[in-house]
Amino acid sequence: MTSTQVTLIQIDNYGPWTVTPEPRREVDLQTLQSRLYADLSQLVGNREGYVFFTRFDNMVAVTNGIDGDAHALIQESVGNRYPVTVSLGIAVDERPIAALGRASEYLQEAGSAQDKSRQEILEGETLPERERGEEDVHIAHFDVNDATGKYTDQLNAFDTFIHIEQGYAELMRYMRTAHDALSFFVGGDNVIAVCPSLSRADYHDAIDHVDEAVGVDLKVGAGRARTAHDAGMQAKHELEVCREEGTLVELAWE
Amino acid sequence: MTSTQVTLIQIDNYGPWTVTPEPRREVDLQTLQSRLYADLSQLVGNREGYVFFTRFDNMVAVTNGIDGDAHALIQESVGNRYPVTVSLGIAVDERPIAALGRASEYLQEAGSAQDKSRQEILEGETLPERERGEEDVHIAHFDVNDATGKYTDQLNAFDTFIHIEQGYAELMRYMRTAHDALSFFVGGDNVIAVCPSLSRADYHDAIDHVDEAVGVDLKVGAGRARTAHDAGMQAKHELEVCREEGTLVELAWE
Amino acid sequence: MTSTQVTLIQIDNYGPWTVTPEPRREVDLQTLQSRLYADLSQLVGNREGYVFFTRFDNMVAVTNGIDGDAHALIQESVGNRYPVTVSLGIAVDERPIAALGRASEYLQEAGSAQDKSRQEILEGETLPERERGEEDVHIAHFDVNDATGKYTDQLNAFDTFIHIEQGYAELMRYMRTAHDALSFFVGGDNVIAVCPSLSRADYHDAIDHVDEAVGVDLKVGAGRARTAHDAGMQAKHELEVCREEGTLVELAWE
Amino acid sequence: MTSTQVTLIQIDNYGPWTVTPEPRREVDLQTLQSRLYADLSQLVGNREGYVFFTRFDNMVAVTNGIDGDAHALIQESVGNRYPVTVSLGIAVDERPIAALGRASEYLQEAGSAQDKSRQEILEGETLPERERGEEDVHIAHFDVNDATGKYTDQLNAFDTFIHIEQGYAELMRYMRTAHDALSFFVGGDNVIAVCPSLSRADYHDAIDHVDEAVGVDLKVGAGRARTAHDAGMQAKHELEVCREEGTLVELAWE
Repeated sequence: MTSTQVTLIQIDNYGPWTVTPEPRREVDLQTLQSRLYADLSQLVGNREGYVFFTRFDNMVAVTNGIDGDAHALIQESVGNRYPVTVSLGIAVDERPIAALGRASEYLQEAGSAQDKSRQEILEGETLPERERGEEDVHIAHFDVNDATGKYTDQLNAFDTFIHIEQGYAELMRYMRTAHDALSFFVGGDNVIAVCPSLSRADYHDAIDHVDEAVGVDLKVGAGRARTAHDAGMQAKHELEVCREEGTLVELAWE
Repeated sequence: MTSTQVTLIQIDNYGPWTVTPEPRREVDLQTLQSRLYADLSQLVGNREGYVFFTRFDNMVAVTNGIDGDAHALIQESVGNRYPVTVSLGIAVDERPIAALGRASEYLQEAGSAQDKSRQEILEGETLPERERGEEDVHIAHFDVNDATGKYTDQLNAFDTFIHIEQGYAELMRYMRTAHDALSFFVGGDNVIAVCPSLSRADYHDAIDHVDEAVGVDLKVGAGRARTAHDAGMQAKHELEVCREEGTLVELAWE
Repeated sequence: MTSTQVTLIQIDNYGPWTVTPEPRREVDLQTLQSRLYADLSQLVGNREGYVFFTRFDNMVAVTNGIDGDAHALIQESVGNRYPVTVSLGIAVDERPIAALGRASEYLQEAGSAQDKSRQEILEGETLPERERGEEDVHIAHFDVNDATGKYTDQLNAFDTFIHIEQGYAELMRYMRTAHDALSFFVGGDNVIAVCPSLSRADYHDAIDHVDEAVGVDLKVGAGRARTAHDAGMQAKHELEVCREEGTLVELAWE
Repeated sequence: MTSTQVTLIQIDNYGPWTVTPEPRREVDLQTLQSRLYADLSQLVGNREGYVFFTRFDNMVAVTNGIDGDAHALIQESVGNRYPVTVSLGIAVDERPIAALGRASEYLQEAGSAQDKSRQEILEGETLPERERGEEDVHIAHFDVNDATGKYTDQLNAFDTFIHIEQGYAELMRYMRTAHDALSFFVGGDNVIAVCPSLSRADYHDAIDHVDEAVGVDLKVGAGRARTAHDAGMQAKHELEVCREEGTLVELAWE
């Protein structure tokens, strides 16, 4: 059984900040958003977690192993180096969507995302050390079969992108509805999902669904461990096994 | 009539690099991708262009005003500071999708995205100075009506994200099919589209379509100018007019 | 008595890399060096250490509390995101210069800094957890009295810089010769020194020496703790006490 | 005859900001300073200029070819992405120190570096396009003979650093006093100087002086061109000629 610790990272008052006193240069906003995400990726990743860019002003992280003090340090570091601050909500649940739901509520209870007086909130619950186990985090890493051969080297880059977006949108909705899982596009033709305990059959069903619904062929590797990093690295290796053996689903624990 | 100069930026041999000799840490790949995008945003933005992260290993830029030498400088700078290199294909067309198509072909003709020997290609055509005009680039900036009130402060962050993704996926397909336009999610609840000349009615149709198809309410500001930056900044200001006046479509030239 | 764990971070084969196949653009080298330093500052700082940019291709860090695995992670992260790799030598000693000396030897024994085949060395000894104590790291933070009033707002920026450089050069030599301490300019008019246990009189002597030798007036705050971060933060606060009370030497433990 | 356009870049109100409301984490200040410098290196370098980190809160740039609007863009971009802002003073003179002097005065006249109300000043004069020529910027690139063999692979890293610092301090003072030149340590064992027109004999004298005064052996390559980038790249190539031919002074124009 999984026990996913999820942190919602939300930039405080960002919408108003981007247009005050006047709309700011788009390329600077893009640079700021991307670098903030990159820094959070390092800060969280340095402690074995994963962060997903999601909407950039709202980012979702899997933070098993990262306690309240470490969250506070991350928040302080951002406040020292950026013209914006972040609020953090943390929660733990077997179902990832439920953990994210409670993490979101902690922030909503403290105030609106665009409330100038709501700043640097740090609320929630972390998974105590003694309750942690080897199957807490379940990560699946999907990619599109032969994306380079079928799409990148054949179609123009936007039509390739449309195909991959359709595949992602279908997968994200299906995994959320069927399994309470959270799925994130991470670049290229890759999607990483944070799941409760799923079986080989569950993964085959997901892949079949996306193929039938939008005609995009996926394969997947999955892993489970104490931390997002370890589970995710297992999943990457399983995906390599899929490539070598021509299979569609490989699980680290079978 | 528009004359859009589009550059496709593609990381050379990225897929294989990410798993050689073994799969690399996901957080490091995310950091690298995001920072490369941020740097390109600055390099291109410094000369009034826009870059969209798209798939991160393939990025789309609007580069009116940026000539071959300036493209070469950007390519060299990346090669000096990253463990990867980029290939650039450039093309100009009234229809943005056609420009991107030719830009993609320049790269495809040179070799596969995963061909180790294809490195740092720089091919294509730029818009000559004497042919440039004040209506070359047409940019539209969409956002979701009252996203914070309706979604961010009410739903958990992933269900908010799903709504925004659905709105984006619908809009991107519609704009590509109906108008040969390229649309990009840029964070928050914002989508920026690179279009040929469109009318007020065209924008109302797009907004109506997305509302009927997936129930997401959009508003839009549009601008047109010699460069992506100027057109985009006009579009941002028009979006502010929408906010102040409660309208759904505002155009800088009317 | 202090117990300073020092890590020498050396970029592998950097000299040759900067001129192969041809000299690389200086601004790109500066960008790479500075960002690598900034990343190491975060990676080491996230675990309560300090890094000093020193020569940029050779950087000195105080790493009490950072074990071998954490060093390996830092090394791996750099290798994943930069076009260069780093070698790390680690040693512990009461005298900071001795720790740095042994850390340097570990790398020298493995091969030259410009030996293409010497890559990503990780050698040395770390301070075992059970041997750590509250006085392990002794940090002193010096700054120039009224630098803004006397220099920045009066002289041209280079002559101000020359004064501060002279003050730094004198202080660094004196502290190394008299106390085996390592002193680093950290920007503005600030110098941070990593020392063995020093007394109030030792600090007054250092300040007097620099005043007599080059006519630069310094004040200093000092702290001592288990980690560089804690000792350094104490030192910063003591420097604030100097400012408020008009004193020249303030120690956190008296 | 040279015509050096120098820009002084000064962070507004930085001293107070670093300790308000309390002293900020040193590693975050180091990260901020280094990344700001790296970004300025790219922004200025993208237009063929050079930036030197100098004191980090005060940085010196050679900006021939960069006009007022481009300076304003750089200033705006920093203000959009950092928690601090910068003021810029620009001046042109045959003697680099005189240019920097006037650039410094523009800022001093507007207010103290620690005056909260002095923000984002942009004052000065740029070199008009019609007055620019091929010998405007004269750059010399010094390095220490066989630093790796003599120092890096033999001594501990700090004693190597002390040698290089001594060489730099001596060179910077001599070049300023004898020639009104500005010299900057740029990492490794390299110093870049911005000079008026100097001769082969002038360079031999400088090298002899540093050898006699502190026993550090330098060699130098020099170039001159319309921009800092071109002059600097010539200088780098001449330094390679020194390495290949075993000479101490090589000039691009002889």
